[in-house]
Amino acid sequence: MPLVRISLLAGKSESHKQKVSEAIHRALVETIAIPAQDRFHIITEHAPADFIYDPQYLNIQRTGDLVIIQIALSAGRTLEVRKALYRRVADLLHQEAGLRKEDVFINLVETAKENWSFGTGEAQYAT
Amino acid sequence: MPLVRISLLAGKSESHKQKVSEAIHRALVETIAIPAQDRFHIITEHAPADFIYDPQYLNIQRTGDLVIIQIALSAGRTLEVRKALYRRVADLLHQEAGLRKEDVFINLVETAKENWSFGTGEAQYAT
Amino acid sequence: MPLVRISLLAGKSESHKQKVSEAIHRALVETIAIPAQDRFHIITEHAPADFIYDPQYLNIQRTGDLVIIQIALSAGRTLEVRKALYRRVADLLHQEAGLRKEDVFINLVETAKENWSFGTGEAQYAT
Repeated sequence: MPLVRISLLAGKSESHKQKVSEAIHRALVETIAIPAQDRFHIITEHAPADFIYDPQYLNIQRTGDLVIIQIALSAGRTLEVRKALYRRVADLLHQEAGLRKEDVFINLVETAKENWSFGTGEAQYAT
Repeated sequence: MPLVRISLLAGKSESHKQKVSEAIHRALVETIAIPAQDRFHIITEHAPADFIYDPQYLNIQRTGDLVIIQIALSAGRTLEVRKALYRRVADLLHQEAGLRKEDVFINLVETAKENWSFGTGEAQYAT
Repeated sequence: MPLVRISLLAGKSESHKQKVSEAIHRALVETIAIPAQDRFHIITEHAPADFIYDPQYLNIQRTGDLVIIQIALSAGRTLEVRKALYRRVADLLHQEAGLRKEDVFINLVETAKENWSFGTGEAQYAT
């Protein structure tokens, strides 16, 4: 159910992008308890002129390895769970993809659980 | 008003993409009653490594023809209307663009009706 | 905190895109009072077949210079503030980037203030 958009500077290897995607997915599985099969990620690469970030907003030092992750997901996770998600994404991206934790930007876009159709035209999560 | 982001694997023909966009637009017009002129779609193509989907989550068999459709729209449609939208998008993509209904993934992102400006710096839908 | 996605037809100059991004950022700073350093923009260019817009919906005449701006931001801005934002974005894109105000399309996607992590795995805006 999460639809994950992963944006980064062009030029990273396929292996790096794969590790990034896998780390994010594992963090989602571990913290917000999505099924292991529930994985839908779109990765986009951008030229430097098109990928604009502040290198020190909030005194966090960002580099060209920055990954901007926007996750659409069903609403209802507690603040503690969302905080655990951010921590786990940053930890796993550091551990598995070698990223500095400062280079992990996350935004959650919450939607109703009825706002998804995973195929066949049905609203699989509507009760 | 809906802003529709259509993502698919690279390599589809222009004709196919046009049919996909037209089918989605027609489904929106028919089910959530947007004006026929209210059409704003952005289509993006992605390499296989960048377009990651589970091929059988929820026992729905997906192929490389998968279309991931994320629709930002004003909130307020009933569940029945949203369900009708999913059904109609899948039906028309099957009928008009030859897609299997299993290859139609939809996510709605609802926003306030005041959250749109269609040009000239005004909030045309604000009351 | 706003995550700004700027979409336009391919073929514009880097200078134009830079002016567009700067104008949008300045409008955000001036109207919704984000810090000057709080800038995260992703610009994408699209072929004509992939960038579909109605050229006169709501009697607004749009051209190939259209910029579609989708802004994820924390909820809570009043309607007046959001209206001021639209006006200022259109004014500054006209003034600084030479765009017709009719060619400025804006959509806001509001999220909870806890739905952001700006790096290091923390939820910097959560209280």
